[in-house]
Amino acid sequence: MLAEERKPARAGRRTGRRSGRGTDRANGPGQNPHLRVPYITRGIPTYDLLSEDALDRIEAAMDRILSEIGIEFRDDPATVELFRAAGGTVREVSRDVWNIRFAPGMIRELVKTAPERFTQHARNPANSVEIGGDAMVFAPSYGSPFVMDLDNGRRYGTIEDFKNLVKLSQSSPWLHHSGGTICEPTDVAVNKRHLDMVYAHMCYSDRAFLGSITAPERAEDSIEMCRILFGTDFVDDHCVIMGNFNTTSPLVLDGVTTQGITAYARAGQGSVHVPFLLGGAVAPLTMAGAVAQCLAESMTACALTQLVRPGAPVVLGGFLSSMALRSGSPTFGTPEPALASLVMGQMARRFRLPLRCAGNFATSKLPDGQAMQQAMMSMMSAVQGGANFILHSAGFLDGLLSMSYEKFVMDCDMCGALHAYLNGMAVDDDTLGIEALAEQGPGEHLFGTAHTLRHYKTAYWDSALNDDQPFETWLDQGGADYASRANRRWKQHLADYQPPAMDAGTDEALKDFIARKKASMLDAWY
Amino acid sequence: MLAEERKPARAGRRTGRRSGRGTDRANGPGQNPHLRVPYITRGIPTYDLLSEDALDRIEAAMDRILSEIGIEFRDDPATVELFRAAGGTVREVSRDVWNIRFAPGMIRELVKTAPERFTQHARNPANSVEIGGDAMVFAPSYGSPFVMDLDNGRRYGTIEDFKNLVKLSQSSPWLHHSGGTICEPTDVAVNKRHLDMVYAHMCYSDRAFLGSITAPERAEDSIEMCRILFGTDFVDDHCVIMGNFNTTSPLVLDGVTTQGITAYARAGQGSVHVPFLLGGAVAPLTMAGAVAQCLAESMTACALTQLVRPGAPVVLGGFLSSMALRSGSPTFGTPEPALASLVMGQMARRFRLPLRCAGNFATSKLPDGQAMQQAMMSMMSAVQGGANFILHSAGFLDGLLSMSYEKFVMDCDMCGALHAYLNGMAVDDDTLGIEALAEQGPGEHLFGTAHTLRHYKTAYWDSALNDDQPFETWLDQGGADYASRANRRWKQHLADYQPPAMDAGTDEALKDFIARKKASMLDAWY
Repeated sequence: MLAEERKPARAGRRTGRRSGRGTDRANGPGQNPHLRVPYITRGIPTYDLLSEDALDRIEAAMDRILSEIGIEFRDDPATVELFRAAGGTVREVSRDVWNIRFAPGMIRELVKTAPERFTQHARNPANSVEIGGDAMVFAPSYGSPFVMDLDNGRRYGTIEDFKNLVKLSQSSPWLHHSGGTICEPTDVAVNKRHLDMVYAHMCYSDRAFLGSITAPERAEDSIEMCRILFGTDFVDDHCVIMGNFNTTSPLVLDGVTTQGITAYARAGQGSVHVPFLLGGAVAPLTMAGAVAQCLAESMTACALTQLVRPGAPVVLGGFLSSMALRSGSPTFGTPEPALASLVMGQMARRFRLPLRCAGNFATSKLPDGQAMQQAMMSMMSAVQGGANFILHSAGFLDGLLSMSYEKFVMDCDMCGALHAYLNGMAVDDDTLGIEALAEQGPGEHLFGTAHTLRHYKTAYWDSALNDDQPFETWLDQGGADYASRANRRWKQHLADYQPPAMDAGTDEALKDFIARKKASMLDAWY
Repeated sequence: MLAEERKPARAGRRTGRRSGRGTDRANGPGQNPHLRVPYITRGIPTYDLLSEDALDRIEAAMDRILSEIGIEFRDDPATVELFRAAGGTVREVSRDVWNIRFAPGMIRELVKTAPERFTQHARNPANSVEIGGDAMVFAPSYGSPFVMDLDNGRRYGTIEDFKNLVKLSQSSPWLHHSGGTICEPTDVAVNKRHLDMVYAHMCYSDRAFLGSITAPERAEDSIEMCRILFGTDFVDDHCVIMGNFNTTSPLVLDGVTTQGITAYARAGQGSVHVPFLLGGAVAPLTMAGAVAQCLAESMTACALTQLVRPGAPVVLGGFLSSMALRSGSPTFGTPEPALASLVMGQMARRFRLPLRCAGNFATSKLPDGQAMQQAMMSMMSAVQGGANFILHSAGFLDGLLSMSYEKFVMDCDMCGALHAYLNGMAVDDDTLGIEALAEQGPGEHLFGTAHTLRHYKTAYWDSALNDDQPFETWLDQGGADYASRANRRWKQHLADYQPPAMDAGTDEALKDFIARKKASMLDAWY
């Protein structure tokens, strides 16, 4: 379904809007028009795992890491000078490497100018999202070098896959954001692929998206393309793009990263700061310590944005992972990081920052039971913990090495179910429904009661992908498993896809910018 | 692993005990000896969805149902007399059918003599479980007429399947209770199969179990067999068996049920009271109303036990289900009932009763991604809501019509992961692990730190069934999906199974009892 078909509904609980044009489609399975929103407004409380005392201890540990061990900065003297001027204790470790220690409380203080909640604008204003507070945004998985599907197995991603996946994302009402590197388009030169990726998001989607972070000049290109799409003045005053940055754990921020962060912040654009903490490898494998380290790293990156431009939108992040005991492989969708995600939510609220955390993680190599069990454990922690920007909401498989077409649509369906979950439970005279029971009395079914007829279309999440039919019916229809149905589903979505309209002049200007940029440099493959 | 190999550890967080004999096995995948307990002690807070005001409204709705609509009783004048004597307003609807209304607060008052927490004793004392408070018990799925596995598909269950499944249950360290009708042994006469089922639990497991509820005399037989196994005096003073009862929703308790409840309560044994509420069919399809009705029905059944024998152990229950919009089929593992399970937890704590709720529900017909996604959403609600006795923790497929061998071992593995989840997150100097980061400093990995070496064996849940290996390794090893691995796993468990020892005289007495009972009646098949 195209985004244009959705009314620009104010996000909120039970807005109950239906699209005029979408009425026919809304009668098909999985449409759930009453649940559609440009972003979710969480209607359930957060699941607060730890006491305030325990949170105090984690914050104190973060402060000890920052004040006693410090963060290492590389190859970016300008960033070092910013932190020195702000009060950091700089020690030159070697040429182009500095260690900076921060007095307890200093980083938290620096971050206070960041907004607790902000809007990322989409080219279709009806699709603009709020990030922070009780708003929640689902975005596709990010960064897999491989793609896989049931027909062709696992292979390197291409720009064709990239476009397909942006289209699939745009086709799902249960994602709100087009994401970023939805897969690596490995058939395009490394120094040019950001141009094609950003253009694909702009062209095949009309939702908000992420830009490049692999080099400062690619970050600048991403922002420049937004100036073409949104207009220079608009971009100067509004967040229209974000960069998703990883620290180099443990406790390092390299120059490519800090310069990229600086590019986004200077332009008033958003950035997300996500340490990837594989416990035992680059972080303590006890979760309390991993959370403290995650905060030390992410908060320092957030602080940099505020030194560059106070008030720049910024998102605290955490990507917490466990490890297989025998092999040292990363594991995802496991219980300990799920708990840590809940704690990250508590800390983000303490620091009054939006949070990116968790997603539909899985280590399985197939879209099977393992994949969905892991995904669900991880994703529940994100939504229950109150994460605001949930990257990796669709397609994550193979420990993030592969983007799966089938799991993409499975995850989208599950994201739909989470829309219903996050609506919470209304308790009022109507939902208590005593008259429904009284109408027929004990022993009589409620199928025909006025209450049932009033509510049956909206009471329950209606999955587009689950099979709830009797065994015999399911078998008569071919007895397909979930993965096979998902395989058919993504092909149908691609066949049905229609691009959102784009102004021809804007499209021309974007193509011209890309052509000039590509012509200005030789292909580089590293 | 046999229960005897486990030390009779006091249940609790991070008991960290290892079996002496089990050391070698503990080095294999999925052993997690530090997580093994006879039952879980919840180390995380409950997830409280609703405000106290909203809970007040639900309790008020329960009271309105009980006082204005009433509960219908059938074919059991003795139960009617008990409630009349206790203050219920009895109206004879027809011969053998009575409607009883209860003044607001009356049923809650009657239930107050029930224990908030009790012990169900197992024949191996190390396996006795606590039910209530922060204790949590996982038991296999209950009541499927069909069984299925990947080799033979779906067929009616037999007593051979029943024995196999009791053995699989006993083999898993992540279940704590042998359950009851683990599948229907449809090759044994209806009026005799309870004898074979109870014997199988007694013989092939040394954990606690459930007895028959399909007729009062079968309940009595189940309890009588316990007197043989545990000794008459012991049974009189201790809970050694429970019956799992369904109301006839909406708002009916038939005579077979109330007489069965009476049999268990009179013997001082436990009972679980579980309305199966398919919203829109036998309950309001708005969840607030379904919860109020569930409480009205279950609390009335609980009250009966206290009229029969004050202090009899009793478990509040709820089995809340949604419905497929187009077909009217029940759906499981959906978001709305997951929220309702959280509320049932809040209400059970308000009423100071142990709770049975949710489980590893699924409507899929295969042990695939749908199955595990649904299972996880449902099961998380049970453990987060603080349910105490979680029946349907393993094997539930096909909307409860089928017990799946593969999903059984999948669910068991997931139950293991939940042991780690329910342990919560310790926050102390050791787990904050600042010295682990300080040891090498920024940019250096933590593989060899003292902290990592001290914690790596116990920091993370170690799955026996998930594949976390790199894609190439997984492919080299055959590229099996989760279901195929589960298929191999249950066969291996059955091959490795060794029965717990039983006293020969007791075994003889049980067999003699069964033989006499069977000889005393003709086979009945309805």
